[in-house]
Amino acid sequence: MPPRTEGARSDRSGSTRRQFLLGGAVAGVGAVAAIGVDYALNRQDAGTAAPASTPMNGEETVPFHGTHQAGIDTAAQAHGLFLALDLLDTTDRDGLTRLLRILTDDAARLTQGKAALADSEPELAAAPARLTVTFGFGPGLVARAAGSAPSWLAGLPAFSIDRLQPEFSDGDLLLQIAADDPLTVAHAARMLLKDARSFASLRWSQQGFRRAYGTERPGTTMRNLFGQVDGTANPEPGTTEFDSVVWVEDGWLAGGTGMVVRRTRMDLDKWDRLDRSGREASVGRTLANGAPLTGTQEFDEPDFDATTAVGFPVIPPFAHMRRARGVDGEKIFRRAYNYDERPAGASVSESGLIFVSFQADIDRQFTPMQQRLADLDLLNEWTTPIGSAVFAIPPGCREGGFIGETLLGGSS
Amino acid sequence: MPPRTEGARSDRSGSTRRQFLLGGAVAGVGAVAAIGVDYALNRQDAGTAAPASTPMNGEETVPFHGTHQAGIDTAAQAHGLFLALDLLDTTDRDGLTRLLRILTDDAARLTQGKAALADSEPELAAAPARLTVTFGFGPGLVARAAGSAPSWLAGLPAFSIDRLQPEFSDGDLLLQIAADDPLTVAHAARMLLKDARSFASLRWSQQGFRRAYGTERPGTTMRNLFGQVDGTANPEPGTTEFDSVVWVEDGWLAGGTGMVVRRTRMDLDKWDRLDRSGREASVGRTLANGAPLTGTQEFDEPDFDATTAVGFPVIPPFAHMRRARGVDGEKIFRRAYNYDERPAGASVSESGLIFVSFQADIDRQFTPMQQRLADLDLLNEWTTPIGSAVFAIPPGCREGGFIGETLLGGSS
Ligand code: HEM
Ligand code: HEM
Repeated sequence: MPPRTEGARSDRSGSTRRQFLLGGAVAGVGAVAAIGVDYALNRQDAGTAAPASTPMNGEETVPFHGTHQAGIDTAAQAHGLFLALDLLDTTDRDGLTRLLRILTDDAARLTQGKAALADSEPELAAAPARLTVTFGFGPGLVARAAGSAPSWLAGLPAFSIDRLQPEFSDGDLLLQIAADDPLTVAHAARMLLKDARSFASLRWSQQGFRRAYGTERPGTTMRNLFGQVDGTANPEPGTTEFDSVVWVEDGWLAGGTGMVVRRTRMDLDKWDRLDRSGREASVGRTLANGAPLTGTQEFDEPDFDATTAVGFPVIPPFAHMRRARGVDGEKIFRRAYNYDERPAGASVSESGLIFVSFQADIDRQFTPMQQRLADLDLLNEWTTPIGSAVFAIPPGCREGGFIGETLLGGSS
Repeated sequence: MPPRTEGARSDRSGSTRRQFLLGGAVAGVGAVAAIGVDYALNRQDAGTAAPASTPMNGEETVPFHGTHQAGIDTAAQAHGLFLALDLLDTTDRDGLTRLLRILTDDAARLTQGKAALADSEPELAAAPARLTVTFGFGPGLVARAAGSAPSWLAGLPAFSIDRLQPEFSDGDLLLQIAADDPLTVAHAARMLLKDARSFASLRWSQQGFRRAYGTERPGTTMRNLFGQVDGTANPEPGTTEFDSVVWVEDGWLAGGTGMVVRRTRMDLDKWDRLDRSGREASVGRTLANGAPLTGTQEFDEPDFDATTAVGFPVIPPFAHMRRARGVDGEKIFRRAYNYDERPAGASVSESGLIFVSFQADIDRQFTPMQQRLADLDLLNEWTTPIGSAVFAIPPGCREGGFIGETLLGGSS
């Protein structure tokens, strides 16, 4: 494996160090220039026989160590794999500590494009492609650690819309493995699961995707399988709003957050029977570019008071956007993935959204919102939550530390 | 959807027209220059508000119409979805013709980044990302068409190593849907399955992947989940060898080929217990770069007669490469995809290879090779075929024609 060059290392939001060096001039003409400059910067690293060329996205890395775990404020990668493990009965507090030390070490290496210790396929580790591994703790894990759990970790209330299947719900330890390359994700998952095997068993796994690297300009809001622009009204990483929505301030979770993962079936057959204006009304935004029905551009501020000529609200009272936004201003940060699996029976799709949100206080921020949506939301006609889980995401760690040390103590 | 620009259109092997214009100077310094030129070429097309920038891989298209179907000599895309359908009893010869006309129309549009007729999510069609749709006909379809089937379409003989599951085997109509973007693949699959619904039902589906666009330099041989470089000794599209290995010369299949799809489980747990030299011996190539054990570079010619100091062959007698190559020189073109699914039970992986090969005469080219491997191949210790299907791939068609017209007659 060639040594990673500094020039190819990126920060968590996915912009590369060379872009930083260039003062951020990376859009439009700047991008072309940046590629030229990058080529010059990297030329000396190009090695022996390989033809000199632009750096590959496969070489891009997201730092593992830091105040917060990566994979939350990281620009969402193309592939996301969510694994929930259950601790074996034999895994006591010490065992749990050992497990987290091992998995932390694996994640720290793999995300930097290095093989894990005892990696049997080290060549597959050589292209990190912005790999991140994010750890989440379920209530069972915190109990095993004899730690104090935030009240919201007990789980969500039952919602009337839920049709939850245990095979997509709950779990002691969550691993969110995300990268722009599916082979990278598969390899990382296998290494982590192998090393977890004597401590925990796999409870469920969910594979998700967004647009591939290179398909669209960076920063384009994703579309879900309904064709909707999904993720517009979302706090932006790097802003104080984001920080206050997402990061916990006190206790062993300080610098961490709360995570909700809800697998939501989307009935594409039924959706396809709805006409375009009905679809747009269901959310309150256009399909063409995600603009609010009262505006023309995606990021236009919706006017919830606007009415049609005959006096009806332009954004319907039960539109998803209106109901989700609510009146009391509580916010969440969404980072969802599409899923599309082998359909069973006469259906031609088994599709939906792995809804993922991060927020400091699930009870205060997420639950009232989900309750409002469960009570009334036009979108409920075509969507059904079939899995649900809640995790405490501990803070990041320094080199030599491990994820979970604030819960378990760093010395054991 | 913005009109596709000529500059962003690519031929089937994935090189773009602009590269052609530039005389193929696309490697190294040339690539940087090409991006600059492309930027210039596309500037006038950049539209109104969008910032000018380099073209996205999402805009790249592979021509649909032509002598041969696309998706065979096309540089393999990152994602491959294989769908096998069974014709309904009610689908007669005329119905079959209608079905193929409809699906051809869908494929012709979607691959060019245009919405299918009655596409309910037209926005999802806007990023073709080198989408190809390749049609294959099973024996049931050719019988329904009252056509004459090549003898090899009857199916492969039973091999001792096979543990075939019906849910991954056979089928009347194969759709190979491949693109560099997973959302593009999901949308195309749904459109095609919806339009096929009144004529056929889904028998099986298999999702596969390779390295993402941008992870590695174009042309890098893929690795499978054993970590092996897989695809080195393979006829190269555009050569006379490729043409003679792949394309059928006579009858309604002229310009078409034969396709074998074999889902092969790879036992990663067992593989991981084997040491590195054992792994390399099993194939006869190194894991580091895929060089033959008698050479140093991937494309070095293996020396099958070389012996060690103590007189053993360097490439073991039962190494996969030696057994696959054989003595009589029959060849196939391999275009495989990795798969990695939710594991069941105590296993931490459910992984393998969707082995795909194209060859003009399956009986003459593929079967003896597979028979030799079934008789003796070190790799059998870690691999098990669990699905198998054979399809006749009809030739391509002109605009206005449809895939299958040489079998069904273009006039109906
Ligand atoms: C399959 C299920 C869901 C789909 C398809 C969906 C889709 C959408 C779409 C298209 C938008 C408008 C664009 C945007 O701002 O992102 C939106 C907004 C939003 N959704 Fe959802 N959503 C789903 C579930 C949920 C759930 C479970 C929650 C939280 C409980 C939620 C919370 C929100 C919020 C907070 C907004 C932004 C509202 C605002 O404008 O302030 N969504 N969703
Ligand atoms: C999971 C199953 C399989 C795996 C993991 C596998 C792997 C490999 C690897 C690593 C190579 C060496 C590099 C290369 O030239 O690509 C190779 C070569 C080859 N394999 Fe396989 N293979 C599998 C199944 C098959 C099958 C079923 C066939 C055909 C019946 C086949 C035919 C070949 C051929 C023709 C070569 C090239 C041999 C030469 O050097 O001329 N393989 N395979």
